[in-house]
Amino acid sequence: MFRWRRKNLLGLQDLTKEEIEYILNTADSFKEISTRPIKKVPALRGKTIASLFFEPSTRTKVSFELAAKRLSADTISLQAASSSILKGETIKDTACNIEAMNVDCIIVRHSSAGVPHMLAKYVRSPVINAGDGAHEHPTQGLLDIYTIREKKQKIKGLKVSIIGDILHSRVARSNIWGLSKMGACVYVCGPQTLIPPLINKMPTKVTTDIKEAISEADVLMLLRMQLERQKERFFPTLREYSREYGIDLERLKLAKKDVLIMHPGPVNWGMELSKEVAESPYSVILDQVTNGLAIRMAILYLLLQKRRGR
Amino acid sequence: MFRWRRKNLLGLQDLTKEEIEYILNTADSFKEISTRPIKKVPALRGKTIASLFFEPSTRTKVSFELAAKRLSADTISLQAASSSILKGETIKDTACNIEAMNVDCIIVRHSSAGVPHMLAKYVRSPVINAGDGAHEHPTQGLLDIYTIREKKQKIKGLKVSIIGDILHSRVARSNIWGLSKMGACVYVCGPQTLIPPLINKMPTKVTTDIKEAISEADVLMLLRMQLERQKERFFPTLREYSREYGIDLERLKLAKKDVLIMHPGPVNWGMELSKEVAESPYSVILDQVTNGLAIRMAILYLLLQKRRGR
Amino acid sequence: MFRWRRKNLLGLQDLTKEEIEYILNTADSFKEISTRPIKKVPALRGKTIASLFFEPSTRTKVSFELAAKRLSADTISLQAASSSILKGETIKDTACNIEAMNVDCIIVRHSSAGVPHMLAKYVRSPVINAGDGAHEHPTQGLLDIYTIREKKQKIKGLKVSIIGDILHSRVARSNIWGLSKMGACVYVCGPQTLIPPLINKMPTKVTTDIKEAISEADVLMLLRMQLERQKERFFPTLREYSREYGIDLERLKLAKKDVLIMHPGPVNWGMELSKEVAESPYSVILDQVTNGLAIRMAILYLLLQKRRGR
Repeated sequence: MFRWRRKNLLGLQDLTKEEIEYILNTADSFKEISTRPIKKVPALRGKTIASLFFEPSTRTKVSFELAAKRLSADTISLQAASSSILKGETIKDTACNIEAMNVDCIIVRHSSAGVPHMLAKYVRSPVINAGDGAHEHPTQGLLDIYTIREKKQKIKGLKVSIIGDILHSRVARSNIWGLSKMGACVYVCGPQTLIPPLINKMPTKVTTDIKEAISEADVLMLLRMQLERQKERFFPTLREYSREYGIDLERLKLAKKDVLIMHPGPVNWGMELSKEVAESPYSVILDQVTNGLAIRMAILYLLLQKRRGR
Repeated sequence: MFRWRRKNLLGLQDLTKEEIEYILNTADSFKEISTRPIKKVPALRGKTIASLFFEPSTRTKVSFELAAKRLSADTISLQAASSSILKGETIKDTACNIEAMNVDCIIVRHSSAGVPHMLAKYVRSPVINAGDGAHEHPTQGLLDIYTIREKKQKIKGLKVSIIGDILHSRVARSNIWGLSKMGACVYVCGPQTLIPPLINKMPTKVTTDIKEAISEADVLMLLRMQLERQKERFFPTLREYSREYGIDLERLKLAKKDVLIMHPGPVNWGMELSKEVAESPYSVILDQVTNGLAIRMAILYLLLQKRRGR
Repeated sequence: MFRWRRKNLLGLQDLTKEEIEYILNTADSFKEISTRPIKKVPALRGKTIASLFFEPSTRTKVSFELAAKRLSADTISLQAASSSILKGETIKDTACNIEAMNVDCIIVRHSSAGVPHMLAKYVRSPVINAGDGAHEHPTQGLLDIYTIREKKQKIKGLKVSIIGDILHSRVARSNIWGLSKMGACVYVCGPQTLIPPLINKMPTKVTTDIKEAISEADVLMLLRMQLERQKERFFPTLREYSREYGIDLERLKLAKKDVLIMHPGPVNWGMELSKEVAESPYSVILDQVTNGLAIRMAILYLLLQKRRGR
């Protein structure tokens, strides 16, 4: 029988197919809790969970907080500006200080790739990566995979096309690793300037042709155009991006009749997708949010309560 | 027997006299809880209440949070800048995302009138208006009415004068609707430039003469001069406003011996009223704060637990 | 038998040796709670604790919040800018408003000395000083004394040298009062410009010679160089400060073999002390953090639950 042994959740690249499946199955049993009149179980009563966000975030942070509260854990939250003073030594110092207050888990988001991995070396508590630079965002990847499995009853053999700014997207990377381990065929699609050069080291097919991405796809996963991260201009105008890669009802005609439209949110309306598409039956965007809570409850439970030999 | 049926609390204009009385009576039974050594009842255990404040607030937000905690609910809080990007679609998007995490109630404050009403159409959860532009602030109105009833043992037949910046005040509007439904005779008083043109559509008498407002009044409700909202100059100088409409001990001599002095806070000291008046036995300003908690507990309880046929 | 009678914790200058010892002994019994799998006792269930921080803080605020949660109290938090509008009247007004919501305790930090004392006069609830200007920071003093007692099994007769910016340090003042009451011999050491003129009114010896401070000391307590507080230049360059008063492994050779290195955090790395020293077995910096939680649990418990005749 499978036993959970990992201390940290740092990325989906590290996980095995069995581990991913075990997380999804655990989330299944937690999803129901949020539909009860009393949405609370005592699983993590008396545990303390710290969020350490060096990058602003609302949705992910609130989702983790609610997950913790529904498991009856206590939460503390530190939102710090990712300023130039916050060099490695200071980040480690902050984490060690938090741990000295006997917290049981540290959830960290940082604009630099690798910060959660560094912290995981220094603290005894489990570390959860809530997004590190353009590297990974594993709970987002897991909730996306969970949502696809829920709607399609399988992952294996599906064609999943990830469309948009692949270069800056940790969501894309976590999904590429996770979905390919689960047997999906993953495509990435976007303007050439937004495809990272090392994409050929990852288990994904690449295209700049939106028609190729849409055709026969079971899932279209649209990424948020993170305008704030783009210091250079990667494409001529936003209108042009939208015309070439945005999904509206017209373009959706190229897709399979049962295609799923996904987006990690928040959507730039009219850019990545039109309002009509978001409100169409194809869209599972709000299911992703609901499932995010179940996935985060599962992760907290596995790392804090079920880890073997603690 | 009266049964509570409303899903939302959007404004006092919509409520009947019976509904207002039912809320006040419910608040009566909750007021006592905050005086116990253990200030907590399990009424809303396992419920999640989200505050979505697009305008900065401290007092109202803390009052709602404490009300939720004393009912054993979990709370999440999103404080967002009311920036120009936050157009209708985005507000709706934010609310739908929150609801997708299975929250049980959304408390919203926004600088634009009507935002809570719009949200109430899109989400299944109860929506509470914690202030929308210059439109309504129903829990403030209710706590004011509750405080008057507590001190005067009735509302019917009382003369209540609301003094100050009526034009920008949602507190004034909620009180005008609520108090007049309860049978009070409401006056508004302020400089002509701060009286809204459509005031004659509301159940209130209007005067610019402070003496007329004070004379025979049972309650003087002073409004906060919201300097930050006044883009134009509505009166020559602050000193002049204070001299014409501010309440000090001297001016209070014109009032009845048992007049109540109320203010929604925070007070601009020396402007709307003098420190001596605020600390006089006439002032019930801190009672308003205490009663605000009881009213908010009552509203949360009614919308989340008592609503018929859920 | 000793009975706790104080309403407030405003500073260590006011406390007797017996009171300090009673707090330390109470903290002993609370320290163990944070090492349990379920880190929570119901001692303050249904109590409400408000933090009112007019100065930014992360560590102290989080430590108090966690202490409250581990005692099952509810917490509310108001972080206000210490702006020029926040004159005395407004601070009092804010505190009275908070109290009107039936809170059981107010924890206050302010950049001006004496604000907690002023509030304590106006509110019925216990007030805890979490740092007032350069005056006192009593819970920091207590956790430092607790840590020394824990490591050395006594305070009496120890030589404790406090090194750095004495002028701006409330940590130094609280430690000087507390440690001297407990029988320690306290030295302060720093550049002449950072020694307050009235230091000769306090129970401490003064030196500008780092060698004298280190020699035969049982404890070296390094202060944070609060660069943000120094409007004038108190020493030529940071490098010079570090060379004269910073502690590195080389300088540590002058110290006793069992000297303790303490720092209230956050450390300016390479300035007050080197990374090597912080990670050496001499350093008890993280013990201070852990003990801070136990001290704050003890204080909350004593003021809210054990106070005689409430």
